[in-house]
Amino acid sequence: MAGLFVTFEGGDASGKTTQIGLLADWLKEQGKTVVVTREPGGSDLGNELRDIVLHRRGFIAPRAEALIYAADRAHHIHEVVRPALERGEVVLQDRYLDSSVAYQGAGRVLDPSEVREVSLWATEGLMPDVTVLLDVPADIGLARQASEERAYDRLEAEALEFHERVRDSYLAIAQENPDRVVVIDGTAAIDEVHRAVLERVSQALD
Amino acid sequence: MAGLFVTFEGGDASGKTTQIGLLADWLKEQGKTVVVTREPGGSDLGNELRDIVLHRRGFIAPRAEALIYAADRAHHIHEVVRPALERGEVVLQDRYLDSSVAYQGAGRVLDPSEVREVSLWATEGLMPDVTVLLDVPADIGLARQASEERAYDRLEAEALEFHERVRDSYLAIAQENPDRVVVIDGTAAIDEVHRAVLERVSQALD
Repeated sequence: MAGLFVTFEGGDASGKTTQIGLLADWLKEQGKTVVVTREPGGSDLGNELRDIVLHRRGFIAPRAEALIYAADRAHHIHEVVRPALERGEVVLQDRYLDSSVAYQGAGRVLDPSEVREVSLWATEGLMPDVTVLLDVPADIGLARQASEERAYDRLEAEALEFHERVRDSYLAIAQENPDRVVVIDGTAAIDEVHRAVLERVSQALD
Repeated sequence: MAGLFVTFEGGDASGKTTQIGLLADWLKEQGKTVVVTREPGGSDLGNELRDIVLHRRGFIAPRAEALIYAADRAHHIHEVVRPALERGEVVLQDRYLDSSVAYQGAGRVLDPSEVREVSLWATEGLMPDVTVLLDVPADIGLARQASEERAYDRLEAEALEFHERVRDSYLAIAQENPDRVVVIDGTAAIDEVHRAVLERVSQALD
């Protein structure tokens, strides 16, 4: 396809939104048409589905949840991402299939490779040209979210362990896909991270 | 599992609801605990998802639609059907995975065998013990729905062709699964169909 598909991955508070904004500004200065989007919820239908998985009261069976995310993804890629790429635009997307794999891997309920297969079926196999993984140790990510440095209670310690597993899954994905995934130290200064992102994206544009 | 899982398949107006009701009454007379359910929409979450696929305005990407049905199925099987079967109850279900395969096969947008795989992942491979296919020629089914016999206009003729393809897909499924699927002539009298259903279900109960 004519366009460029760049996804941003990493834990919460790893700086994805900031970096996507900076990259979008730079690309527009270069005369590119940029589409900034996200999953879940990058379409009208997606927002309805996102509401169900994120805000609905009551239990949702794990496979049902994974399939709702996959439905959101199928519609979003079909309606938003693929048409933009076919028009030759640059798509910057906050989270994609690596999120599903990393979070399922960390949650240890479903087999991450099965979740990946469902996702690939949903998107007819669409893979990003570049994936930027903003790597931040879990304790720093959680501290950024809490905006304070302090000791963790039991629940927060469990959360910490979970987020460490998410990070490990992400790093494993990066290791298996060195041509697609660039790992950038998300604890560095914002403009330093931005320069590292630009280096990789300019390469891909050439 | 201790219970018995019976699904009813066939086109609209093939008599599924009537036959499920008669069979449920008979089973209760035999002292069985019976759960009557349906897809899509056999759970609270399922009804929300059913609303989205059946009543939402605007286009839904075909794979997204298939995945929403699969999500409904995953939740319904996990929350309603499997627990009932584990308690040793009889589950009578209006439509299950053969519907997805037959309608996708007839619609010719997605590969029916892929849709089947997604469905099996959703349900952790749960298959019915018995599937009753109420076979009705498409023109009779449509005439029953319209409650009048008359010539078809162009749109209705397309509908007729589609429903013939659904019927053909169902019959192919039956041929491939002779131990599971019993084909019953749905144009016969209600009590005659009921006797044929009873024959097969009593066999399975023994």
